[in-house]
Amino acid sequence: MNIQLLMTGNELMSGDIVDSNSAMLAQRLKDLGVEVTRKVTVADDFPLLVNEITQMAAQADVLIINGGLGPTSDDLTAQALATVAQVELQEHPQALAHVTSWCQKRGAKVNQPNLKQAILPAGADIIANSVGSAVGIKLNVNHCLVMCTPGVPRELSVMLEDEICPLISALLPEELHVHTTRYQVFGYGESSLQHLLAEQFPDWPKELEIGFRATMPLLELKITTRTHAQQLLKQQWLPRLIASLDSHIIHEITDKPTTLAYKLQTLLTEKKMTITAAESCTGGLIASLLTKEAGASNVFHAGFVTYHNESKAAVLGVDKTILEEKGAVSKETVEAMAKGALRVSGADLAIAVSGIAGPDGGSDDKPVGTVWIAWGDKAQINSVCLLIKANRWQFQQQVAAIGLDLIRRKLLGLKETPRYFIERNPQKNV
Amino acid sequence: MNIQLLMTGNELMSGDIVDSNSAMLAQRLKDLGVEVTRKVTVADDFPLLVNEITQMAAQADVLIINGGLGPTSDDLTAQALATVAQVELQEHPQALAHVTSWCQKRGAKVNQPNLKQAILPAGADIIANSVGSAVGIKLNVNHCLVMCTPGVPRELSVMLEDEICPLISALLPEELHVHTTRYQVFGYGESSLQHLLAEQFPDWPKELEIGFRATMPLLELKITTRTHAQQLLKQQWLPRLIASLDSHIIHEITDKPTTLAYKLQTLLTEKKMTITAAESCTGGLIASLLTKEAGASNVFHAGFVTYHNESKAAVLGVDKTILEEKGAVSKETVEAMAKGALRVSGADLAIAVSGIAGPDGGSDDKPVGTVWIAWGDKAQINSVCLLIKANRWQFQQQVAAIGLDLIRRKLLGLKETPRYFIERNPQKNV
Repeated sequence: MNIQLLMTGNELMSGDIVDSNSAMLAQRLKDLGVEVTRKVTVADDFPLLVNEITQMAAQADVLIINGGLGPTSDDLTAQALATVAQVELQEHPQALAHVTSWCQKRGAKVNQPNLKQAILPAGADIIANSVGSAVGIKLNVNHCLVMCTPGVPRELSVMLEDEICPLISALLPEELHVHTTRYQVFGYGESSLQHLLAEQFPDWPKELEIGFRATMPLLELKITTRTHAQQLLKQQWLPRLIASLDSHIIHEITDKPTTLAYKLQTLLTEKKMTITAAESCTGGLIASLLTKEAGASNVFHAGFVTYHNESKAAVLGVDKTILEEKGAVSKETVEAMAKGALRVSGADLAIAVSGIAGPDGGSDDKPVGTVWIAWGDKAQINSVCLLIKANRWQFQQQVAAIGLDLIRRKLLGLKETPRYFIERNPQKNV
Repeated sequence: MNIQLLMTGNELMSGDIVDSNSAMLAQRLKDLGVEVTRKVTVADDFPLLVNEITQMAAQADVLIINGGLGPTSDDLTAQALATVAQVELQEHPQALAHVTSWCQKRGAKVNQPNLKQAILPAGADIIANSVGSAVGIKLNVNHCLVMCTPGVPRELSVMLEDEICPLISALLPEELHVHTTRYQVFGYGESSLQHLLAEQFPDWPKELEIGFRATMPLLELKITTRTHAQQLLKQQWLPRLIASLDSHIIHEITDKPTTLAYKLQTLLTEKKMTITAAESCTGGLIASLLTKEAGASNVFHAGFVTYHNESKAAVLGVDKTILEEKGAVSKETVEAMAKGALRVSGADLAIAVSGIAGPDGGSDDKPVGTVWIAWGDKAQINSVCLLIKANRWQFQQQVAAIGLDLIRRKLLGLKETPRYFIERNPQKNV
């Protein structure tokens, strides 16, 4: 099957934004066992669009166009497609209904730019968009199936999952059906996982394809098989790989990917337990991750961002002599923060973090990237010191993720030492 | 000048890596006032490469090919270019000298794969590469100047700076100089800004190009001019547009874009003031945004995530009768939260938010999307009720951004009513 992509947008051509949509498209199609043959990118320029669509539709079995479905005058995809297909533009009843209900749900009036999104080439079908105002467009141009998709990555992602992948899958012959098993892993990067494979599985069969996708902070691991023989190999080798990754596997993706916070929320809900966070260097990120997920109010009642020493004392009751003698980034301080947070919030479990996110504030003794993390309950608080060398935002994300993972491990009763305890041990690097 | 890019590589086509090289190329060229007309991406496939190079060289004045110059067998660029130009491949003395000295400097022997990098199309010139083993290739194919560049981003970057940009600049006529003015706007989306333009500036000159880029929560507005006449038009029209957007303009981008949180941090630092946040529905996001920026410790000492009613009372001292009688999402509650946060943290300014992020928890009286926001200092706390219909995460981001913006307005003494007060007024929609 010859599948081609046409990416459109002035911002793409000017380099103002980096095109991640085409990588997303290619990856999802690869999961179906289909490779993209060719990709062309042009600006929001009518003659150029018409010319490319004409040429690509003449070559390809399927042409996916991305971008240019918005409400503004530089969104030209529908108009260009109509010109290539030599049909009129007309109001599409389903598209109009979608735009209208979209505006109504947001308490907004349907305005002229919105109405433009309901004007499609005659004979086109819509592709549903459950998360955005622009519907997708599906139209056959001679022998090529042309599908127009929105440029907003989240909308594209949902439309791919719900509509386009099933549609393309149905076009594929039986024998071209690919099986993919996907896991989300925490604590391994792509290169460290590659290293583990090389070390522990030097005989890993070449035909058993392993792929990675780095999605901060989780790594997605994919095992793809295309034949029955490969399927048998997978049955033999995969359990060994899983056993080796052990407690670092967060989730097997059967439906959609998860997050550490959602995984934790599920565990806490099951056990009818609540959690709190006392944050210094992560500055509210742990609380924000926990409350980003719907249903958070069942498991999270209060969090504390004690960025300054005085607030650690005033809000969480950390002893001022501890702060003076041991410093804000110390075992004693984070343990006292965790205890204070448990006491003030009444939660069952707590995470507390204090560290040096940088770029300034480091010392020889405690360089930028040093962090103390405490976690536990009223009966027992544990703590660990790690060194995480990354920029400020990556450091904050890593620390927050580790905090969530440590509570996950505690709730599941996992005894294995997390790989990041060894890899991020400050002694290792000093 | 018609400049086209041909990006090559299996990893690009499969989506295993996101192509940032073409954005780098486009940005550097834009700095010269040149726009890339078209970009094509193909895998390391010989017939496809030959076909694309042939077609692109027939259309373009300049064709920049990226990738495929390495030592391995899937690096096919030199060979494909020779085929298109109908010349032999031969060892190039300068390329050989470069590879040889490259290996010697690293104490390595020149091996067969390295030698391959010295085999270029006959008649080609080299483009120096001061940081990598592969030289670039420069060859005229009929009337098109073809330049082949390395896929390693650092090597591409240096080659662009040192060799390719000066070369292209020399080809340009004097009068081709582009000017771009960019602003970051808060409170307008792409379609509402287009609507404002249509309403207030129906005669806006077509040749004065306006572009948008939606970057949640700020919108980027760009005015581009390419001629002296357009520059004069801009001087006439732009001040009127700016006056119309008024207090919604956050920043003029002269160097790099900013964030609301960073803008606020700068203002607070200038005034030597501190801020705190008492968050319910945003769950720590406001604190996280403020502390994501380096230098946060000067202006932010403590934040409170009081997600549950009991924590609003216990941590911030909100009167339990207020919570019972008026509810958590009420003017009285958010104002008491703001006052409590000021008292406990000792900060000069506070933001407090309480709302229904959804998807559940709404009622007829207070539907999902309702939020009360309070902001101010010890002398005066203001508050407002808004209705923000969006999914949970977008709601949280909008509320956090509005909170930051209200403090920005207070610090700058801006009296204009923010557009979102009118657009998000719950009365408007009930």
